[in-house]
Amino acid sequence: MALTEFELVDRFLRRHDSGRNDVILGIGDDAALLRPRAGHELAVATDTLVVDVHFPAHTSPADLGHRALAVNLSDLAAMGAEPAWATLALTIPEAQADWVRGFAVGLFALASRHRVELIGGDTTRGPLTVTVTVHGWVAENKALRRSGAHPGDRVYVSGTLGDAALALSILKEAGEMPAAHATFLRERFFRPQPRVDLGRFLCGRASSAIDLSDGLAADLTHIIEASGVGAEIDPETLPLSPAMRSLADPNRARTLALTGGDDYELCFTIAESAAHELAGWEREDECPLTRIGRIVAKPGLRLIDATGAELKLPTTGYRHF
Amino acid sequence: MALTEFELVDRFLRRHDSGRNDVILGIGDDAALLRPRAGHELAVATDTLVVDVHFPAHTSPADLGHRALAVNLSDLAAMGAEPAWATLALTIPEAQADWVRGFAVGLFALASRHRVELIGGDTTRGPLTVTVTVHGWVAENKALRRSGAHPGDRVYVSGTLGDAALALSILKEAGEMPAAHATFLRERFFRPQPRVDLGRFLCGRASSAIDLSDGLAADLTHIIEASGVGAEIDPETLPLSPAMRSLADPNRARTLALTGGDDYELCFTIAESAAHELAGWEREDECPLTRIGRIVAKPGLRLIDATGAELKLPTTGYRHF
Repeated sequence: MALTEFELVDRFLRRHDSGRNDVILGIGDDAALLRPRAGHELAVATDTLVVDVHFPAHTSPADLGHRALAVNLSDLAAMGAEPAWATLALTIPEAQADWVRGFAVGLFALASRHRVELIGGDTTRGPLTVTVTVHGWVAENKALRRSGAHPGDRVYVSGTLGDAALALSILKEAGEMPAAHATFLRERFFRPQPRVDLGRFLCGRASSAIDLSDGLAADLTHIIEASGVGAEIDPETLPLSPAMRSLADPNRARTLALTGGDDYELCFTIAESAAHELAGWEREDECPLTRIGRIVAKPGLRLIDATGAELKLPTTGYRHF
Repeated sequence: MALTEFELVDRFLRRHDSGRNDVILGIGDDAALLRPRAGHELAVATDTLVVDVHFPAHTSPADLGHRALAVNLSDLAAMGAEPAWATLALTIPEAQADWVRGFAVGLFALASRHRVELIGGDTTRGPLTVTVTVHGWVAENKALRRSGAHPGDRVYVSGTLGDAALALSILKEAGEMPAAHATFLRERFFRPQPRVDLGRFLCGRASSAIDLSDGLAADLTHIIEASGVGAEIDPETLPLSPAMRSLADPNRARTLALTGGDDYELCFTIAESAAHELAGWEREDECPLTRIGRIVAKPGLRLIDATGAELKLPTTGYRHF
């Protein structure tokens, strides 16, 4: 059943059950009206997903709805911000009610978990493309930036690395996931969990942070370039999932962990003297933190094994062009 | 020359010359950081332009850059908000430096005029699609909504109506504009001027407002439905440009004025007792305001001519699906 834009928005996208009291006027006027939070800075991030570029055409609408918001919340997580509002620009080839309903289910399930309200957007006809802009709040001068890493800081990552890239390569090559790891790998690729709580915990503790969308080597390079420092990573310490250990040989696992995009874990640096505070996090949450290296004065990213030998870095990072 | 995403953004889209002091951190981190304005509400709007749906494929990149921001600033104008920041999600088939440079010229020329800073976004590969999200400030409880029209209010529009639709129909049919009106019509279609100053002037004066993107009949219907009222329009009063009077017969001109989209003028209502204040505006600006009808209690939009006879409304409004 084909619907008009107004019907689509009315039926599936207009919801006011986020419990927020800072949305003065939501979907339905020329613009949303929102109440700022005193003593805070507004964090704003935008990410676009294009069919066949950022996700396979067979991705379910619910997975896509989740993913479109998740990759944006991951950016807020990397700033240490508390999510508040999102806008959605949804371009779809045709307005199928079932498709939009499914998309909304995935989107709002994640939105509810983080108390995000969809406050506006645009629905248009065209090749499947989703752009979400998210807004969040972070206490004045407390945001996690890429530029705060100092020599001597420790480098950490959350969760495990390379799983999304492993899942994608299996989907492309075999078309089907091995049963023992199918659920885990599908979740890791189609349902990334933005580390929002971790980001907020790291506010005022970590010296810099970034989310892992382009792969650890590329994203950590952003940190060290913005901070004017270098980093040494011990490849043996890169956290790998049981699925990765089972399905990829050690070399491939290392390459995927260093260069695989779409993990949406956080990579952060923290002063040696503050690192003990991380113990508080690990006791409270299932998302493990792993120390993988250290910040040094000498520019550049290097892989240094336990013997002190330098290893070659695999070619890094996802490039959109 | 093909460029990476980072090079594209660095060369053409990263600018800090807006003179704003409320951008704490702009393009280059996981999210922008922005300083809220005390005593104000944040207005947020999002619009997407898709090639061959919202603009012809031969549109120049500079015109597209202008238009993508203009249609969004028009939404802020309709709320009475003062523009502040924008994010840009740019999906392009290939990263041609000349194309992106041209796009940036058009975008930033308009941004500078309204002191808007581009604070973030995403560049991706795919079919040409542009989504802009704009942010502006409006004093607490002063925003212009669609829902404030009352019986007895006067209905006004700014500028002239139907020019963009006329330009588009000529482009489609003849391929070329008649020389005498070519510059005017091209500007009206490719370079709409958001009525930002007018919207701010109307704050605290008008009872409701909307911008004309879908055509007067459709957009005024949004106002009367949101306000629970009706409206009567005198078709003889619809403001028409010299180009329209010269190139379209009276019937066609009326239809274009009522149903042609993409004018990006403002339609607003104002209490009879406050209408004299509009004289202050007309003395200060070249954008004329025309009274076209009145708000009534009886629901629905009607065309009533000077003799009191009701005329048939042409089929209304642009539908994306």
